[in-house]
Amino acid sequence: MKWWGWGYEEAEFRAGNHPNFWPFAKSVLDIDGNDFTRREWNLDSIELPEPCADEPFLSKLRACLAPSKITSDPKERIIHAYGKGFRDLFRLRHGIASGAPDLIIYPESERDVCLILRAAAERDIVLIPFGGGSNIAGCLERMDARRMCVSLDMRRMRRVLAVDKRSFTAQIEAGVFGPDLEEQLRIHGTTLGHFPDSFLHSTLGGWIATRSAGMQSDKYGKIEDMVIAVRMVTPEGVLETRVVPKSSNGIDVNHLCIGSEGTLGVITEATMRVHAVPESREVRGYLFPEFDGGIEAMYECATQECTPTMVRLNDPDKTALSLAFRPPSSGFNKFVGNVFKKYLRAKGFTQPRTCLMLVAFEGSPNSVSRRLQQAETIYRKRGAVGLGAGAGKSFESTKYDFPHIRDFLLDRNVTADVSETATVWSNISTLYKDTIATLRDEIGKSKVRPWVGCHISHTYPTGASLYFTFGFSQQLGLEMEQYLQVKRAVQQSFIDHGATLSHHHAVGTEHLPWLTADISPVGVQAVSGIKQGLDPANIMNPGRLLPSKDPFEDWLAADSPLRASRG
Amino acid sequence: MKWWGWGYEEAEFRAGNHPNFWPFAKSVLDIDGNDFTRREWNLDSIELPEPCADEPFLSKLRACLAPSKITSDPKERIIHAYGKGFRDLFRLRHGIASGAPDLIIYPESERDVCLILRAAAERDIVLIPFGGGSNIAGCLERMDARRMCVSLDMRRMRRVLAVDKRSFTAQIEAGVFGPDLEEQLRIHGTTLGHFPDSFLHSTLGGWIATRSAGMQSDKYGKIEDMVIAVRMVTPEGVLETRVVPKSSNGIDVNHLCIGSEGTLGVITEATMRVHAVPESREVRGYLFPEFDGGIEAMYECATQECTPTMVRLNDPDKTALSLAFRPPSSGFNKFVGNVFKKYLRAKGFTQPRTCLMLVAFEGSPNSVSRRLQQAETIYRKRGAVGLGAGAGKSFESTKYDFPHIRDFLLDRNVTADVSETATVWSNISTLYKDTIATLRDEIGKSKVRPWVGCHISHTYPTGASLYFTFGFSQQLGLEMEQYLQVKRAVQQSFIDHGATLSHHHAVGTEHLPWLTADISPVGVQAVSGIKQGLDPANIMNPGRLLPSKDPFEDWLAADSPLRASRG
Repeated sequence: MKWWGWGYEEAEFRAGNHPNFWPFAKSVLDIDGNDFTRREWNLDSIELPEPCADEPFLSKLRACLAPSKITSDPKERIIHAYGKGFRDLFRLRHGIASGAPDLIIYPESERDVCLILRAAAERDIVLIPFGGGSNIAGCLERMDARRMCVSLDMRRMRRVLAVDKRSFTAQIEAGVFGPDLEEQLRIHGTTLGHFPDSFLHSTLGGWIATRSAGMQSDKYGKIEDMVIAVRMVTPEGVLETRVVPKSSNGIDVNHLCIGSEGTLGVITEATMRVHAVPESREVRGYLFPEFDGGIEAMYECATQECTPTMVRLNDPDKTALSLAFRPPSSGFNKFVGNVFKKYLRAKGFTQPRTCLMLVAFEGSPNSVSRRLQQAETIYRKRGAVGLGAGAGKSFESTKYDFPHIRDFLLDRNVTADVSETATVWSNISTLYKDTIATLRDEIGKSKVRPWVGCHISHTYPTGASLYFTFGFSQQLGLEMEQYLQVKRAVQQSFIDHGATLSHHHAVGTEHLPWLTADISPVGVQAVSGIKQGLDPANIMNPGRLLPSKDPFEDWLAADSPLRASRG
Repeated sequence: MKWWGWGYEEAEFRAGNHPNFWPFAKSVLDIDGNDFTRREWNLDSIELPEPCADEPFLSKLRACLAPSKITSDPKERIIHAYGKGFRDLFRLRHGIASGAPDLIIYPESERDVCLILRAAAERDIVLIPFGGGSNIAGCLERMDARRMCVSLDMRRMRRVLAVDKRSFTAQIEAGVFGPDLEEQLRIHGTTLGHFPDSFLHSTLGGWIATRSAGMQSDKYGKIEDMVIAVRMVTPEGVLETRVVPKSSNGIDVNHLCIGSEGTLGVITEATMRVHAVPESREVRGYLFPEFDGGIEAMYECATQECTPTMVRLNDPDKTALSLAFRPPSSGFNKFVGNVFKKYLRAKGFTQPRTCLMLVAFEGSPNSVSRRLQQAETIYRKRGAVGLGAGAGKSFESTKYDFPHIRDFLLDRNVTADVSETATVWSNISTLYKDTIATLRDEIGKSKVRPWVGCHISHTYPTGASLYFTFGFSQQLGLEMEQYLQVKRAVQQSFIDHGATLSHHHAVGTEHLPWLTADISPVGVQAVSGIKQGLDPANIMNPGRLLPSKDPFEDWLAADSPLRASRG
């Protein structure tokens, strides 16, 4: 895993494979980009805080855990310092790793986790559960430099323990990564059906702790809809629930673990609902002459018994970005580039309003063809033109690559980030228009040209998720202030419009200032009660889910080392 | 509402309309029933505890609430003393109303509720939220005779406040009863799709507080799947959540209100997912030659994209009861009685093994006919014979009448009760067989003949609910001991087999002894934390959801007034 960007060391966005992208970006951002020289990110330039070492704690660890499970290697400390948010990567690239833990432990069993928690509680050591480290909401950095801090990297707890094929449930250790999990489930002819954009780099435990959503949540639900039972080691002991489809046993304690963001304990395993691997899968692309018609088509599908497995509708700006991102060699792009453009123009499609929709249907061949046919009737009513399976294949081949763009842009002094939310159908248009306008205004205040796009995805009968992407060239020396101003405006727009602070990226530190508005002060008090009940000494991921009196102060303070370093 | 039994004053089970029922019951229970004389239940014979009256609290109430909202009328106190469990009705019929509140308040707005909670917190007054009073898990009786106790009857908060037809959501006050709610939603062409057996006598707030399931949960989900947002007045203020389809805002605080059984606050309103009134509805009956084949058919439907809206499969004993319950005038019964019986015999159906399944499909005409056809193919593969729409009509016309039987039987010195649970598909057969055997054994210990039946319903892709009904003639003077012995055995069987304490009847006092086994000691500690956070003075429905050190002691103690009265 890279320490300075997204994904594997060897994976990156290569401009040569996407020759249209950088010219597109320079044009929409109004920059010439000639002053760029690729920096070599140097691990040695990072100032790592001197590790705190609590000797009684360390000697207890050494007594019960093999040395191979413990490390304080500087590179590991840096990798475990942050997630992959803009702030995280920007700080690391500027030599700041104040969020780094003092130690990393790789437990291999629930017993290991119990021993570590007991030892930590005795010595007031902070523990931060770590899955794939892919979150972009600031869920992982240490908030308190004074207490010793340990990152609990769960990757070695990666087994599918049992699959009950008759009941479509699987008992799974929490540290397993997406591809490994699917490979193990595939042996039993099953799939979890959870494919978030971070799929390659995130874990089951991380998905549960953050209330993640996969691309195919339209059919399979969000992760909270898939959890049948859970085991979570807390400072007060192991919380465990039963493998039953549904219950009326008072407050559903599964839902106390789901979304707990490491603040109550360490999720060690979960029994998840799984599905038979679908016999048939169709991925298709469509162009809509305008965004509103595309939204109407999504709405009708979501409310008329032909909900796709996945649907993603890009607004015109996001559509232009998607087209610029596609490799020129793809059959689809050639097709669009040559014959198709003329046809579209004749049909009344105009470049600045056209919207791309990607759709997948999964299930039995009968069910797929029935739903696809029904959906296509709805799409055509809104003037859509099918791009066939080629567009689908093109999407499938690059669907996990998008986050690499940010690193490429950061290298070129361009800030790029995302904010996403969810709202009910009746509110989607207003929220969309106002948030786009807010983003443009706010970015424009720095006298740079804004680029703002949005896609709508994750449909439900009652609403959908809106996912905003934005970019702008950096004011050198004020990059963080610029980012915070924009991020604050977009989050405030969500809350002002009755939407939620995040649909699937978690609260972390990035969204904590809006939590009280989202779940009400009494809701926060309830969460605080659970924390008191399970982690009275506050050793589990402190500073999260419980906003302080002035949460914006903390929000801004996260970057003070950066400002201090600049003098 | 009756104080001594189920339902409206004027509604009851009339043996004349079901002439086969009592002969059937006498035969299976091995009783002659000739010594019976119908008792006249006399309200005046009930010993009501002298009401506690906290004068500062009462004068505060009088200052802020109209007199029409407050009563201490003895009959009202008796009606609000209990739910409708066996223990509840048996105690009332024996003149015991120790669970009665001192006062009943009928709030008419959230403001009223806030004022009442504030006044109660100041004076350490116990508040018990009361919906329809139909629960059978012992959720409503006061547990502490020393503190003044007020029942908050929510029935006057009964309005549908807004329907967002585009987003399929409705904002609804919590005190509305089932039929009133559906009538108000119908004006907007919508339905909640929640039809529990208690539908006529239960409220939205009660459904949410107990995690209720309607007959049609197979399609519409349990109540927890329908809650979009909630408002709950707690002693610490109003908890409110946002009207969004899904979120990643940390721990989902909706799920702290759902299933809270009145222990955290008063649910005053909720925004619920609603549905367009289905264009088409088909209800059908089928006979299966044996129970296992019926279970297989349910399983295939639940896992192969043709899940019915409702499905209920009776085991052979429950089938015999259902047939005995049907009015002789029904076309279906005549049909079965005459021509059909011969046909079935020829097809190899034998009385002691035949099982009745009732199924409903709702949706667009296309979708209904497609799913019905697919399901019938599956049923036929298991040897099922269709009874046509007549059986469905017969079920529809009597579906809310079943609980009246218990009153009829109690009048005749027969104890009848139910216990239900849920488990995964792979465990259904074992749980079924072992629990039936346990029930027979345990009832047999009193030297009376057991009658035990079961139906399976509420299917999910991962499992289903099992609903056991049992009856036996009473040992006079030991009725309660006899009941507790059987109830304890059936609940223990659920827990020993990995199932849950209840699928949709709540914890209350009846199931509290098994809560720790169900959600683990740490789960209970988490619930205790929420309670501390929102109701530190323990004024809301105390004694529930938090088992004491020896929960069985409390469980048995609930009846001590009865035993004391007998000397």
